[in-house]
Amino acid sequence: MAELHVQLNTPMRAEYPIHVSHGALGMVHIPESRVAIVADEAVALLHAPTLQAALEKHGSQVHLVTVPTGERAKTLEVLGNVLSRLAQLGFTRDSALVTLGGGATSDLGGYAASSFLRGIRFYVCPTTLLAMVDASVGGKTGVNIPEGKNLVGAFHQPSAVWADLSVLETLPARTFREGAAETFKHGLLTDGALCDAVLEAGFNARSEKLERVVADAVQVKIDIVQRDPLEVGDRAFLNFGHTLAHALEAVTQHQLPHGEAVGYGMHFAALIGKHLGYEDLTAKTRAFLNYQKPGALPHLEFSDVMPFMARDKKADSGGVRFVTLQRIGAPKLERVAGNVLEEAWKAFAAEFWT
Amino acid sequence: MAELHVQLNTPMRAEYPIHVSHGALGMVHIPESRVAIVADEAVALLHAPTLQAALEKHGSQVHLVTVPTGERAKTLEVLGNVLSRLAQLGFTRDSALVTLGGGATSDLGGYAASSFLRGIRFYVCPTTLLAMVDASVGGKTGVNIPEGKNLVGAFHQPSAVWADLSVLETLPARTFREGAAETFKHGLLTDGALCDAVLEAGFNARSEKLERVVADAVQVKIDIVQRDPLEVGDRAFLNFGHTLAHALEAVTQHQLPHGEAVGYGMHFAALIGKHLGYEDLTAKTRAFLNYQKPGALPHLEFSDVMPFMARDKKADSGGVRFVTLQRIGAPKLERVAGNVLEEAWKAFAAEFWT
Repeated sequence: MAELHVQLNTPMRAEYPIHVSHGALGMVHIPESRVAIVADEAVALLHAPTLQAALEKHGSQVHLVTVPTGERAKTLEVLGNVLSRLAQLGFTRDSALVTLGGGATSDLGGYAASSFLRGIRFYVCPTTLLAMVDASVGGKTGVNIPEGKNLVGAFHQPSAVWADLSVLETLPARTFREGAAETFKHGLLTDGALCDAVLEAGFNARSEKLERVVADAVQVKIDIVQRDPLEVGDRAFLNFGHTLAHALEAVTQHQLPHGEAVGYGMHFAALIGKHLGYEDLTAKTRAFLNYQKPGALPHLEFSDVMPFMARDKKADSGGVRFVTLQRIGAPKLERVAGNVLEEAWKAFAAEFWT
Repeated sequence: MAELHVQLNTPMRAEYPIHVSHGALGMVHIPESRVAIVADEAVALLHAPTLQAALEKHGSQVHLVTVPTGERAKTLEVLGNVLSRLAQLGFTRDSALVTLGGGATSDLGGYAASSFLRGIRFYVCPTTLLAMVDASVGGKTGVNIPEGKNLVGAFHQPSAVWADLSVLETLPARTFREGAAETFKHGLLTDGALCDAVLEAGFNARSEKLERVVADAVQVKIDIVQRDPLEVGDRAFLNFGHTLAHALEAVTQHQLPHGEAVGYGMHFAALIGKHLGYEDLTAKTRAFLNYQKPGALPHLEFSDVMPFMARDKKADSGGVRFVTLQRIGAPKLERVAGNVLEEAWKAFAAEFWT
């Protein structure tokens, strides 16, 4: 069992533990007496009873609020439904939410907690590898709008996180490999060790080193978020691979899961780096795609994805900014010229559609 | 011309000026190069051109986004429309919003600014007396849901406020008197001077002392908000009269304007105080209603309004809490027993329906 700590000093003080272990779900306990579990409806069937029993054992009165599976939960409409439900349950400022599901569920649930009565406490039980090493740390919450992903939201820190590794065994292998994208990315942003851990042994939900790898990947995110809680600097590096990823998700209307989009996006970012004369990391990002086996992309032109990349949150009035890697462990946020993007796209397209 | 300053130290540092003067709208200038005016559609016809010209004179590129008049703007649906519009305009983190309208407009616009890309800057141009002395200070933003008013939102501080007193002359006299409720309330919470200012001379948009009264009323709010930015203590006193007010607004589906609901609500709170043996302020709150001349209430039973009061944000799992006044300048937040509420309601009903 690994226990990690997040401590944010600015601008909102926040300090919370992240528990990583097999069986963490059975150990969840919170001080609030009234709580709603906001759960992915598919995950709820399997795991809500364990969570509910743990909460009730410690005296909380529990309501179950299910939301659509995955990204379909992240709409203003679902948000409104959850908020209305909380009001109907008579929730007050001393009530709390516990989210149970992947990153989409905690994004939606966290945003609901942030918005209800201008903010109540929430706790996160991530049920995918992706959510464990990414969404559960850092307090980014929000929903999508038709114009793009994560364009609406708030920073709202959870009060604790319980990552139950046993839950990962109950998910499809493809979902596990999807989530490995962020772990791999955290390797690229540091010393590469996590990349090797993912690629070496056919990393899966029963891997012996799972707890160590997850804890290490979470720690990378904690370190970056602690340095820059509001993403005014280094935190943007976590967006490595995400600019194209968000565009691919939007274009495919979220048919392509986030982690697979990030898999493609990291490879595209590596191609940009190669065109800029940086260390060639394309063999590594390609090896990750070979491990991950993401769903096939529809045939896309540069003009299909560019408008979505231009709308990325990292964009400012000066143009599209990408996170690039000069080498492993040396990320950089930079404006990339349109012709470089187009060249990188040609190389990318040649790999996947010809 | 009066210039006031808000300085909040915790938890989010914020510092911003509030300009109160005749003609302030023509002096608006902001550093951002891209800006959307989020304007009440009725107010926009009269005053958006002045604001737009001022912003353009200082080099901002301006888009006008109109929203329904008054409380009808405060829905998740309108919020979604505004957010989509900002995305379509290609707004980025260095873009900004300026709200133009009453408190409902700045609540909605401020919440949109708080949510878009997890937060962009916004500025407030309040166009009603109510918004000037209340909504423009303190950073409370949000929308309503069918279950109740202001149940959803965020704390998001504006970067500056321009209160143009000339605008008040273009509004119906009833709207001005509606807004006097918060000014009167600020008098009750301090030394009573603002109460006298409102009651003495048939206070209106052409009153000589208007600038002084508005500035003083704003200062009362600033003092309280600076002591308690997140409403964990004293700030709740500003809710004097608001528990019944929110219920009346909900029951009448916002047919009764906020300031008039607060007028009734202050009288009800004074009746509660009388029943609790505090200084009898009911003659004063009644005199205010005689000045304000609010719209008639539909015939309501205690059981019509109680469920809405129980859902108030000040409520916790222990019951309904009211702000009461032991005497002028001595507010208190306390749990009020159901039978006291019911007795006060009987006295209230006897005045208005028999």
